[in-house]
Amino acid sequence: MSVLVVGSTALDTVETPYGRIRDGLGGSATHFSGAASFFTRVKLVAVVGTDFPERHVDFLRARRVDVSGLRRVRGKTFRWSGLYADDMNEAATLKTELNVFENFRPELSDDHRKSAFVFLANIDPDLQRNVVEQIRDPFVVALDTMNYWIESKPAALKRTLKKVDILFINEGEARLLARENNLFKAARCLLGMGPSTVVLKRAAYGALLFQREGMFWAPAYPLYHVKDPTGAGDSFAGGFMGYMSRRQDLSPRRLRRAVIYGSIMASFCVEDFSLNRMKTVTPTEIQERFRMFRALTRF
Amino acid sequence: MSVLVVGSTALDTVETPYGRIRDGLGGSATHFSGAASFFTRVKLVAVVGTDFPERHVDFLRARRVDVSGLRRVRGKTFRWSGLYADDMNEAATLKTELNVFENFRPELSDDHRKSAFVFLANIDPDLQRNVVEQIRDPFVVALDTMNYWIESKPAALKRTLKKVDILFINEGEARLLARENNLFKAARCLLGMGPSTVVLKRAAYGALLFQREGMFWAPAYPLYHVKDPTGAGDSFAGGFMGYMSRRQDLSPRRLRRAVIYGSIMASFCVEDFSLNRMKTVTPTEIQERFRMFRALTRF
Repeated sequence: MSVLVVGSTALDTVETPYGRIRDGLGGSATHFSGAASFFTRVKLVAVVGTDFPERHVDFLRARRVDVSGLRRVRGKTFRWSGLYADDMNEAATLKTELNVFENFRPELSDDHRKSAFVFLANIDPDLQRNVVEQIRDPFVVALDTMNYWIESKPAALKRTLKKVDILFINEGEARLLARENNLFKAARCLLGMGPSTVVLKRAAYGALLFQREGMFWAPAYPLYHVKDPTGAGDSFAGGFMGYMSRRQDLSPRRLRRAVIYGSIMASFCVEDFSLNRMKTVTPTEIQERFRMFRALTRF
Repeated sequence: MSVLVVGSTALDTVETPYGRIRDGLGGSATHFSGAASFFTRVKLVAVVGTDFPERHVDFLRARRVDVSGLRRVRGKTFRWSGLYADDMNEAATLKTELNVFENFRPELSDDHRKSAFVFLANIDPDLQRNVVEQIRDPFVVALDTMNYWIESKPAALKRTLKKVDILFINEGEARLLARENNLFKAARCLLGMGPSTVVLKRAAYGALLFQREGMFWAPAYPLYHVKDPTGAGDSFAGGFMGYMSRRQDLSPRRLRRAVIYGSIMASFCVEDFSLNRMKTVTPTEIQERFRMFRALTRF
């Protein structure tokens, strides 16, 4: 099986209390691809400029990512730079240069239109909807979004959500979109907007999985060293969707395990800058963390 | 079996977005007693003034709490008043009147000195140590504290921690006491200060149990309506210690379940003002929530 991801590929400049990286490989679709590649074949649809280092494409190829949908167009690659303070909770954005990403209008190939598992990374909800409409007969469509779209294009986002099965969202965004302070009421409200599953990401506090029938509460992997939180949410979605895409099974049991694999991949992501940690992760390490999650929650 | 608690009994005036209570029954030792009384016999050591309504004592007696250590002295009862804003995260203290609590110097009776399970609610760490020294041969001593003591009497607190088995502490306090931002490193540091078990309370995010050998990650009970968070931490400790005191067993399995019972009692506490919810809780409701915790975390 495989999973299709449409989103951004970027060059990130990030500073945290533990170091700094300049023009490192970043972007929502890229982080997703790196994480998902440990579970499934990933098909990446994104755009980069002529300045995008070929070694980053080589890395994705080495992870068996299908980069046929990674368009290279004249101009500069999307660049983001951010700074994390001591508590590492949220990045202060120092600069965003959209560059070639500004005119990103994803056109899927025939092969990509046949995808069963689709992840719409955080881009304009109108573009996300346009992508869904290009897919012939998807089994699962998942979507991530952010404050910016919730505030600037709520109607477009809600139209798109009607076509989505799984919504990935963080706590603050969930409250904002549902206009409800109580998290559990907010999740109920989001389930009413279309998705049959809502995955609430809570960073170091873990994640919650909501369906009409029930709820699952997942811890975060206990990390003694966090170097750079950038990409954690997309790595989470990557582990989640990568695992899901191996079988056409939406049972609660499988979705719960997907949350755990998502949490595991997010935990690797933040241990180093950019996608660096994905270069060394082994399947054994993933299984070790899975067992650790078991030990952590049993009573 | 039984558990001894030494701490404050107060009259609380609290306002939240969901209502207001004036001079309601409050105080750390009182909240602890209410919650623990569902599991064990509680022996309460505290002080109140001549203005303390007898109906509150009647309520404690009805919960089979031993109030022989509840001294009534000339003067006014300790009063606290606080305000919770929309997010219900933290109370803004409007007024604290220590009154008779200012001269609280707990002197234990012979019977109380024989206690096997002891909870030192949040009071001056020198007083807490003085209480431990009065106990003949305790099986477990647990302690709660707060920012105020960590900042104003760190040396006294550290001396007291050497005599303590279980430390209850919230996230911010743990970081402050350990002088360490990473929560897991902070917990390790606290384990080095004396306690063999650290219980990290994270309000709506659940709780973490730390021992040298391992860690347990507990969810919070999903609540759709929170009326008043006051007393949640002490109710947590009450459920935890009440359950523990039924057997002399400090196995990880038992401690993990104690965390769940603590979380359950905290979840009841915040559903109403003061100790009001403790008047209606049934053993069946407690067991239902226990099963819900199971269902919430299985994967």
